[in-house]
Amino acid sequence: MSKALLIMAHGSRSETANDEFRALVERVAQSAHAAGEEFVAVLPCFLELAKPSLVEAIQQLEHQPVKRVQLYPLFFNKGKHVGRDIPAQVTEARERFPDLTIELLDYFGSAEGLAPLVLDHIAGQA
Amino acid sequence: MSKALLIMAHGSRSETANDEFRALVERVAQSAHAAGEEFVAVLPCFLELAKPSLVEAIQQLEHQPVKRVQLYPLFFNKGKHVGRDIPAQVTEARERFPDLTIELLDYFGSAEGLAPLVLDHIAGQA
Repeated sequence: MSKALLIMAHGSRSETANDEFRALVERVAQSAHAAGEEFVAVLPCFLELAKPSLVEAIQQLEHQPVKRVQLYPLFFNKGKHVGRDIPAQVTEARERFPDLTIELLDYFGSAEGLAPLVLDHIAGQA
Repeated sequence: MSKALLIMAHGSRSETANDEFRALVERVAQSAHAAGEEFVAVLPCFLELAKPSLVEAIQQLEHQPVKRVQLYPLFFNKGKHVGRDIPAQVTEARERFPDLTIELLDYFGSAEGLAPLVLDHIAGQA
């Protein structure tokens, strides 16, 4: 089943920060392609303060053969955004796009590799 | 020279989120110890909304043999917090603690391993 990956950041009033996130998503897309992952598209979206929203990002997929969308929240902690606001936006998106299967993935901060990456990054700056 | 590591998060109104960050810092401390890194202490601190602040975290080191403090900003992007607010707090801390060498490390989002970690985490949820 053809699937797309949406990565969601909080969004910032700083377009420089938003562009830095978009560049990260592009690097993830390149890594996915290199690893043979089968995403039709890998796109950024934002919870608030920047565009596109989740619904707008899904609209960008309109003419692509996508049946399944995975949404990955790039958030460190399970605060109210991960625990409440993002699930609410997913519910809204499912109502808007009933033909799509929209899956909400575990947020970034739950990745086991986070602590080792932090330590590696710090040790590399010794 | 005896050094301490402070890891700084933004801080949240949700103590659950703050505690999740503190647990991450504890995991980094354990990884550092296991890897033979020579930190006297590895402590969390917050830019705002939670305690301790940078200055308060440094005060916690008062009776330890620390000459050098490394501060690592756990932020995804170089917005105004990383670009302006954190350097301003470092300047303030250097004035308060002139006998310490306080180094500001590159922020988390600049880690090359970030995109691969994101992809690994997503692929593991397929």
